Amino acid sequence: MAGSILGTIFRVSTWGESHGAAVGAVIDGCPAGLPLSEEDIQEYLDRRKPGKSKFTTARNEADRVRILSGVFEGKTEGSPISLIVENTDQRSKDYSNIAEIYRPGHADFTFDKKYGFRDYRGGGRSSARETIGRVAAGAVAAKLLAGLDVEIEAYAKSIGPFTVPDDAVDIRFSRENPLCLADRETYEKASEYVSRLIEEKDSAGGVVECRINGIPAGIGEPVFDKLDAELAKAMLSIGAVKGFEIGDGFEASASKGSLNNDSFISENGVIGKATNHSGGTLGGISDGSPVIFRAAFKPTPSIAQTQHTVNRNGEHTDINISGRHDPLVVPRAVVVVETMAALTVADLMLRNLSSQYTLIKDFYMNK
Amino acid sequence: MAGSILGTIFRVSTWGESHGAAVGAVIDGCPAGLPLSEEDIQEYLDRRKPGKSKFTTARNEADRVRILSGVFEGKTEGSPISLIVENTDQRSKDYSNIAEIYRPGHADFTFDKKYGFRDYRGGGRSSARETIGRVAAGAVAAKLLAGLDVEIEAYAKSIGPFTVPDDAVDIRFSRENPLCLADRETYEKASEYVSRLIEEKDSAGGVVECRINGIPAGIGEPVFDKLDAELAKAMLSIGAVKGFEIGDGFEASASKGSLNNDSFISENGVIGKATNHSGGTLGGISDGSPVIFRAAFKPTPSIAQTQHTVNRNGEHTDINISGRHDPLVVPRAVVVVETMAALTVADLMLRNLSSQYTLIKDFYMNK
Amino acid sequence: MAGSILGTIFRVSTWGESHGAAVGAVIDGCPAGLPLSEEDIQEYLDRRKPGKSKFTTARNEADRVRILSGVFEGKTEGSPISLIVENTDQRSKDYSNIAEIYRPGHADFTFDKKYGFRDYRGGGRSSARETIGRVAAGAVAAKLLAGLDVEIEAYAKSIGPFTVPDDAVDIRFSRENPLCLADRETYEKASEYVSRLIEEKDSAGGVVECRINGIPAGIGEPVFDKLDAELAKAMLSIGAVKGFEIGDGFEASASKGSLNNDSFISENGVIGKATNHSGGTLGGISDGSPVIFRAAFKPTPSIAQTQHTVNRNGEHTDINISGRHDPLVVPRAVVVVETMAALTVADLMLRNLSSQYTLIKDFYMNK
Amino acid sequence: MAGSILGTIFRVSTWGESHGAAVGAVIDGCPAGLPLSEEDIQEYLDRRKPGKSKFTTARNEADRVRILSGVFEGKTEGSPISLIVENTDQRSKDYSNIAEIYRPGHADFTFDKKYGFRDYRGGGRSSARETIGRVAAGAVAAKLLAGLDVEIEAYAKSIGPFTVPDDAVDIRFSRENPLCLADRETYEKASEYVSRLIEEKDSAGGVVECRINGIPAGIGEPVFDKLDAELAKAMLSIGAVKGFEIGDGFEASASKGSLNNDSFISENGVIGKATNHSGGTLGGISDGSPVIFRAAFKPTPSIAQTQHTVNRNGEHTDINISGRHDPLVVPRAVVVVETMAALTVADLMLRNLSSQYTLIKDFYMNK
Repeated sequence: MAGSILGTIFRVSTWGESHGAAVGAVIDGCPAGLPLSEEDIQEYLDRRKPGKSKFTTARNEADRVRILSGVFEGKTEGSPISLIVENTDQRSKDYSNIAEIYRPGHADFTFDKKYGFRDYRGGGRSSARETIGRVAAGAVAAKLLAGLDVEIEAYAKSIGPFTVPDDAVDIRFSRENPLCLADRETYEKASEYVSRLIEEKDSAGGVVECRINGIPAGIGEPVFDKLDAELAKAMLSIGAVKGFEIGDGFEASASKGSLNNDSFISENGVIGKATNHSGGTLGGISDGSPVIFRAAFKPTPSIAQTQHTVNRNGEHTDINISGRHDPLVVPRAVVVVETMAALTVADLMLRNLSSQYTLIKDFYMNK
Repeated sequence: MAGSILGTIFRVSTWGESHGAAVGAVIDGCPAGLPLSEEDIQEYLDRRKPGKSKFTTARNEADRVRILSGVFEGKTEGSPISLIVENTDQRSKDYSNIAEIYRPGHADFTFDKKYGFRDYRGGGRSSARETIGRVAAGAVAAKLLAGLDVEIEAYAKSIGPFTVPDDAVDIRFSRENPLCLADRETYEKASEYVSRLIEEKDSAGGVVECRINGIPAGIGEPVFDKLDAELAKAMLSIGAVKGFEIGDGFEASASKGSLNNDSFISENGVIGKATNHSGGTLGGISDGSPVIFRAAFKPTPSIAQTQHTVNRNGEHTDINISGRHDPLVVPRAVVVVETMAALTVADLMLRNLSSQYTLIKDFYMNK
Repeated sequence: MAGSILGTIFRVSTWGESHGAAVGAVIDGCPAGLPLSEEDIQEYLDRRKPGKSKFTTARNEADRVRILSGVFEGKTEGSPISLIVENTDQRSKDYSNIAEIYRPGHADFTFDKKYGFRDYRGGGRSSARETIGRVAAGAVAAKLLAGLDVEIEAYAKSIGPFTVPDDAVDIRFSRENPLCLADRETYEKASEYVSRLIEEKDSAGGVVECRINGIPAGIGEPVFDKLDAELAKAMLSIGAVKGFEIGDGFEASASKGSLNNDSFISENGVIGKATNHSGGTLGGISDGSPVIFRAAFKPTPSIAQTQHTVNRNGEHTDINISGRHDPLVVPRAVVVVETMAALTVADLMLRNLSSQYTLIKDFYMNK
Repeated sequence: MAGSILGTIFRVSTWGESHGAAVGAVIDGCPAGLPLSEEDIQEYLDRRKPGKSKFTTARNEADRVRILSGVFEGKTEGSPISLIVENTDQRSKDYSNIAEIYRPGHADFTFDKKYGFRDYRGGGRSSARETIGRVAAGAVAAKLLAGLDVEIEAYAKSIGPFTVPDDAVDIRFSRENPLCLADRETYEKASEYVSRLIEEKDSAGGVVECRINGIPAGIGEPVFDKLDAELAKAMLSIGAVKGFEIGDGFEASASKGSLNNDSFISENGVIGKATNHSGGTLGGISDGSPVIFRAAFKPTPSIAQTQHTVNRNGEHTDINISGRHDPLVVPRAVVVVETMAALTVADLMLRNLSSQYTLIKDFYMNK
């Protein structure tokens, strides 16, 4: 397994290079009977589509998904769901000049070291186009979770040095502005900042925050496959992500136990927590509070400034990257974060079905 | 799989509760012919052992490891390596009062929700004692890596609000002070701070930083099983870890592409990088620079102050946790971070053996 | 994981229903640098294609494979290889009458019990068309193995009650007759037998034998993932296979140790065996002799005779299966056996790369 | 993973060499709340224990199992269950003479080729003692299945050339005779036969048949992880097994569709089959009939006759195997077959929990 398969029960295998014929994903382990249409998936793909504002690449892909298998009469069959999106606007020639040169901040060098050669067209397998498979599969997971009343929402928390204050988060607004920032005031500052970076042929990073509402207590496996551990892997598996934190995260490390512990409370017999410093998990298992985590994205490495680098032969050279690239990945990454979270939670909720013997007994003996 | 197995080729299965007969690990997939003794493992276990300073619990365990299988005449055989450490100082009675009460910041509540009941003695499976299996297995991974010239060193970067400046990191010093802080000046402030917290019956968090030196370029799998993704999972799988970042991490998200990109340089035909903002990976694959990452630990949830909480029946109650607990986990967590990193890197280095067809051909055809 | 993924390193995910848009497979873990073309794969698919003789179904599919990803400039890239074959001749209407009826010997009933409903068109996921994904992926494995001098050849050993004597096996002849039988005399008898069955609207079973030549000693993992165990799983995973044996197989169970043991011999320092009762494995690991195994196929369950059965409501009814079906599956199954064996051996040969520490040290330290 | 881990959800990791300190197993994924005692496991281990008749080795092991983790107050906790059996009667000296010699029919040669060296004491990891871990873990699976009304019973169907007729199978009798044969008349002939072989310093093989009663329809995953495929792997993973068949098995391959198809019938609304040629599966999924399969065991390779072989240096030599060995493995293998079947079915029954969306919805929404 060379790393393109994720999950234990709800298992996704993604495939496709930036400039190949198509990209896609196969889901093995989606339960039978889930209502599913191409539109359910298209809705998510449309949110990651380029070409929507000055903040995103001019590459113009229709990115229409087709379901090739696993759905019959509008419902999943229990068999693998094959999803495909054709690559239609490839312009391979744009990339020919970088075939021999290692772009700073990209995986050109490391792919060459690992495999002996690489598909240099648009980043090949390490292109952001690879996320189409994730988003398409994750849309199916999100549909499954929606039926279980679990809802996942992500938005930009920071762009460059501008951060939305915790008490100003407005998720609806994040769906209406091209930076996906969850606060108008922050958006205005960040928008000006990014515009300036575009003029300077530079790029910005940012932080995406994600909330998982409705997740029942008990999800996540102790020890290695904790809910937060699987989320951290899912996030760091997204190209450009350099950090992950859950709940108070790094701030918690500077706090005290007396402040950081969340008191348990009880209302009408339902146990909850007075605060949510933990971000919705205890011991790696969901505690019934919303799960809240953040992923930090580095600035887009492709910038139009001249950069110093080397070629395959180790000779120094300069590079001007002229392809179509986003000045920041965060706006299009929001839906990637959401769908990767959906894949993670769906898999752990299916794994959790076998946690209690008496419930299994109920399942089989009353059937 | 309920989450206690890690790895694809170098695969570790840990087991054991805080107050059971023993804790341990089984490694399946360690190559044959690696010289290995109990002392190789004991050295690592001794570094996580409690009872060494006022900053760690008074629980007194010998924590002697025994190798029950997989080693013959001083070398690994290729068969599973079974490691066991007996629990000798259990004092189960200390915990009887919390059988029905949910401790804030602990997994009592979530285990009950997941499994219907729990082993309340000392946290059961979610006890820090669970890390013995990780450390023992990770010591074997570290031995394997040492033979491949890969060296992993972790140390405390922060304790509470006190952080070692990047240019002051002194790893040797970190091995000589009970807080494992990598700078004398920071240590003195933090030591005073923690002493005060102990008096206040409170606890501290901190950040552990880890450097992996000598890792060749090409390690890590693209897409889901990136080196950084697997490290993130490994770190977040450690109880009390709430955040992970690699290289500049969250700071990178506020930077610009022109500053954050590491230029490639070449010296005597060897390609390297002028800076290391990326923390040693590009596209999820090691780039030949040192891998540098950080894990954020929350403050120990067990504090001797009276805390408000609820019991199993949802009735409000107060709790005073009187067991033996560390006022901070960081000093003992340093070796856990190191060994979890070792498990991660060892597995990915074995997975990398099958990356290139011509090398496989060499392996089989010249044999 | 719902069972459509196979392998540990060379990992295949197949997908597709008989009457969906297409069928296919994704390979994750094929080493980079293997020369690969669509023709390499097409050659294998052509061997399983229907419509070639009176002994196979009249369904007429072009079954042209396309490689959608993972190959660049004629070589595998190390990224997932996505293979697709479109379904062009579906005639869904043929099957509408069996939507509510359980065909004897088919998976209609068990799919309904498992999933609550099923794609009744042509068997859906349990159709023999599912094997296209196996054959396409296995062709890639076979190409990889060919480069390592491992060659796999299967042929029909029996059709109905007619069996090729061990000393008459002629593999070349098996490629020239429509029953794939490895002996002319047996072919003539079997051919007449099957013709009579066709007239009687009945069907035949048979045994496929497979030889793996050139497999080096040392392949296969002890305990659960033995070479023979993985082969057995691979074979029984093929629809219609009811038995597996390696070497002398069931006959060995009636033999004596003194007769069944293969003596080791040595010629010019090379250790071999005087006989090969074991079929090329000892302790689940290849011993350097040819691996020889057999898979028993039941008669095709789809027969044009009237059969008694029940419908979904448990009401008794008769059924006449009128679709296009093979009177025996063996001729088209030969290439399925070969390619499933190739997938199994390729995966175990990649797994074996990490067996010896000193070889791993060579790999990394001399690089 | 070097092959000592089995299962997807109910996952077992076994460990231990014949002459190491102990052998054992770790189960990760056993549901919480299953009543479990050491006696539940001991009962199964006692059935595989040597030293009970002239037909089994004189090695005398107490083989007492201890549960080291995962059970609290008599019930499984959901955490890994660690099982250990100490090796007490090792007599390593018996084996010193074979350190350099390759025993015919054993894995000495193949282990050397794979790993570069081997633990020559009593077969090391490839000893029949390795099955203790399987039986101990399988006893837990059997306990789980018993609670779901699934019962597994194996017995000797053949010893050497003597086979119990299908209509004479008497399972109760098989528990009362030292050959575990399911028919008195066959037992008497076989007993005499084996006695003669012992005198001749020779050994016998045999066939173990296994019935799984009460398994509900719907168990097993289509395509690769079919119920019969997983059973085949489980059986062939047992040392000395050379063949597997389910239902009519190899005989089916000589039959006709009209005879081999099982008609569906309906009684009081419950759908069943008029016959059971299929052995309880259709399309790899259980069909509600008893699952019936057979495993063929080769004759014990360790015989006291002088045998020709070679040593590590490729020099010809003779060998007289003088250790303690069974003249046939079948009687002790019966419980190994049973427990391996239990592991297989338990895992697939847990996997099946996620097959239907509406049932998952019930699980989470009504909770």
